[in-house]
Amino acid sequence: LMVVATHATPLNKEDLSVAEVLRDRALESSDAYSLVESLTVEVGPRRAGTKGDERAVAWAQQKMKALGFDRVYTEQIDVKRWARGHAHAEVIAPFPQPLVVSSLGYGASTPEGGLTAEIVPFADVEALMAAPASAVKGKIAFINKRMERARTGEGYGPAVQGRSKGMRAAAEKGAAAMLLRSVGTDSDRFAHTGMMSVDGVANPVPALALSAPDANLLEAMLQRGKPVELKLDVHNAPLPDGPSFNVIGEVVGREKPEEVVLIGAHLDSWDEGTGALDDGAGVAIVMETARLISELPQRPRRTLRVVLFGAEEIGLVGAKQYVDAHQDALDKIIMVSESDFGAGKIWRFDTRIPESKFVIADQMMQLLAPLGIERGNNKTYGGPDSSVFVARGVPAMGLYQDGTDYFDYHHTPNDTLDKVDPDNLKQNVAAWVVMSFLAAEMEGDFGRVSIEN
Amino acid sequence: LMVVATHATPLNKEDLSVAEVLRDRALESSDAYSLVESLTVEVGPRRAGTKGDERAVAWAQQKMKALGFDRVYTEQIDVKRWARGHAHAEVIAPFPQPLVVSSLGYGASTPEGGLTAEIVPFADVEALMAAPASAVKGKIAFINKRMERARTGEGYGPAVQGRSKGMRAAAEKGAAAMLLRSVGTDSDRFAHTGMMSVDGVANPVPALALSAPDANLLEAMLQRGKPVELKLDVHNAPLPDGPSFNVIGEVVGREKPEEVVLIGAHLDSWDEGTGALDDGAGVAIVMETARLISELPQRPRRTLRVVLFGAEEIGLVGAKQYVDAHQDALDKIIMVSESDFGAGKIWRFDTRIPESKFVIADQMMQLLAPLGIERGNNKTYGGPDSSVFVARGVPAMGLYQDGTDYFDYHHTPNDTLDKVDPDNLKQNVAAWVVMSFLAAEMEGDFGRVSIEN
Ligand SMILES: [Zn+2]
Ligand SMILES: [Zn+2]
Ligand SMILES: [Zn+2]
Ligand SMILES: [Zn+2]
Repeated sequence: LMVVATHATPLNKEDLSVAEVLRDRALESSDAYSLVESLTVEVGPRRAGTKGDERAVAWAQQKMKALGFDRVYTEQIDVKRWARGHAHAEVIAPFPQPLVVSSLGYGASTPEGGLTAEIVPFADVEALMAAPASAVKGKIAFINKRMERARTGEGYGPAVQGRSKGMRAAAEKGAAAMLLRSVGTDSDRFAHTGMMSVDGVANPVPALALSAPDANLLEAMLQRGKPVELKLDVHNAPLPDGPSFNVIGEVVGREKPEEVVLIGAHLDSWDEGTGALDDGAGVAIVMETARLISELPQRPRRTLRVVLFGAEEIGLVGAKQYVDAHQDALDKIIMVSESDFGAGKIWRFDTRIPESKFVIADQMMQLLAPLGIERGNNKTYGGPDSSVFVARGVPAMGLYQDGTDYFDYHHTPNDTLDKVDPDNLKQNVAAWVVMSFLAAEMEGDFGRVSIEN
Repeated sequence: LMVVATHATPLNKEDLSVAEVLRDRALESSDAYSLVESLTVEVGPRRAGTKGDERAVAWAQQKMKALGFDRVYTEQIDVKRWARGHAHAEVIAPFPQPLVVSSLGYGASTPEGGLTAEIVPFADVEALMAAPASAVKGKIAFINKRMERARTGEGYGPAVQGRSKGMRAAAEKGAAAMLLRSVGTDSDRFAHTGMMSVDGVANPVPALALSAPDANLLEAMLQRGKPVELKLDVHNAPLPDGPSFNVIGEVVGREKPEEVVLIGAHLDSWDEGTGALDDGAGVAIVMETARLISELPQRPRRTLRVVLFGAEEIGLVGAKQYVDAHQDALDKIIMVSESDFGAGKIWRFDTRIPESKFVIADQMMQLLAPLGIERGNNKTYGGPDSSVFVARGVPAMGLYQDGTDYFDYHHTPNDTLDKVDPDNLKQNVAAWVVMSFLAAEMEGDFGRVSIEN
């Protein structure tokens, strides 16, 4: 016979019907909302290396134990630390007004008493990089690029370049500071903080995000043709490196406990909001997913491992150290996925698996489609922390949330619980239990992938 | 004949057709937006008695002159002054977290170094007033009343009681401070500042508005049953009284220049936003209304007087002093109206005129109805400053804006230009020119009104 199985072993009917029961149970009675409520109320801001981070690590362990996970443990990671101080900015001339700003992560301070300088606008960071140093030296480089709103969040990639590279480019040209139109889609008076590239910058300068209305204000002043002069007064402080933790909970497999389906989210947040959307919702979704699966009459064949990564926000630190620490066991991780795009409904199911295994994804789709989910592409990284695993060949799946308004709140003080819709979380958990249970239960696996395919 | 005219002299056809031309010109080419843009960009925050207020007064005079008003002048008023310092609040126990707060206007400071106390929640200020002093003494009284959203803004009246009276009630019972769920309809992390009653309070205590998400947070902590302890660190300072100004521009009447149609808005704003909605939009609408009317081939019969009131926010100070200074001339003001409810479309036309004059309002309605405006009631005060005139018998008209989202931004840092829709302003000016021109041009007048009728 020519038709020997190069295709994957399909999921069997019994497994599919268990997954369907799980899905419907999740829609009816899953309660991820209580978890994100608990995390935001009882912990709140939890930037890596802070007291809030410590409390979050304790919260996660206590909660996983209470939810009935078979094993709960932490793995220490090392993080760079930093203390945020004040950040004041005001227009001195031609039209004195205060501005709403926030220091970007690990940003420098102004000299004591502040600094006063003229702003020079740039359409984007590429324009700043192309400018002669003489145009910027001693001035405040103002990167004024707008971000496009999209369900996929695809406007983020182009817009975030200014945040990542702007300070470095400004510092190298001798600028006094770097000022960035916030990477966000809202028109509210919140600055969006976030990480930037600081390593190896010889003379770092203060780097501030500016709310969209404030960026509009500077734009309008510049249009009037007179020099626009600001006073900045910023204080931050680097701190010695310190510990943080990945927090891990497992539902141990009944047949192949050493094989792992790894579902993750990140436990850390930025420090100005309570991290409800980024990434409290993700934490809640994957915890509740594992809890529902742990309530089945029997454990799935493989281990379901929930990893709440530390220090994602400051450079995927927890994920990178996890992969380094466990490089010999990565081939036992049969699939990785992460929830880190807020609390919107899931609308697309992406994968990164060998084409020969598409039949499995197709079977999963039979249970996902009734949730309003369509089949996407085979190019997912499964999420930011997940991408570190994919780079080492681990297959991934991605349940893509509707991110239309995610960047309205992302990394602002306004990322709070009221932005989370409990019903959307139920739909999320419904999709996650289908994907997670079937991957943990199925015969066979997905093999390995390459990021070139 | 029995049917002698006790009814009003109706508007004549020619006047109505001029008003129609004005209306359509306003819809096409009025540009109130440029005025509010200019005020917010070139002046910005302008709380009464501050440097920003001074700049606003200069701006208004310069702008009225440039717009071609026949007379532009100021009238000095005396205002209480106050300097806003920092306001920090954080939960100390059981779940340490920072909170977003703002001092209410003319609020007191904490002792140097701050104060720490437990919070005691109250459903509303009435509950606080009814509580025994022993329940509040030494604690932070937390008034946690929600405001209802409505096109009319009618949720404001009940909700604002806590802001007006809360500090006094708390201070009289020996509370350490008063904390208020913001009087607003948004769920954004902005506190809504505003005025409160401070006169005669023997021992004023710090009074802070809390953003809605932060009020939710405290509520959730209280639900867990443990004492919730806050640290407050607030610094403000009273300043000696000083001058501010009503800024007045006139289009002088061709036949009865001493008779006046008074249209107003307030020039001052709170200090955390740029006062685009409150009340930059109103300032722009009434200025642009007068400009359009001044471009007619001839002046209207009566004087159209635009009054930009000072210090509205701190107790209708400009309007009260105006009325006192001009009490002998109030009978020459045939009608008063004010624009002070944001930048939404006008949807209702209210009056306060004798019933015998309703025919005039009906004729105005013929030109207003095509703008989507319906006839309202005869109980308007015409706006906050306007109400001071109505109390003295001056007839009023009110063009009611859609205020559905007005209290999302009201008195917050988020009251900025991006919330103003230029097309809505055109519709506003179209309605205002109809009402203002016809009142200034018509034969006869509205007589006097009483606030009991
Ligand atoms: Zn995230
Ligand atoms: Zn993030
Ligand atoms: Zn107002
Ligand atoms: Zn106001």
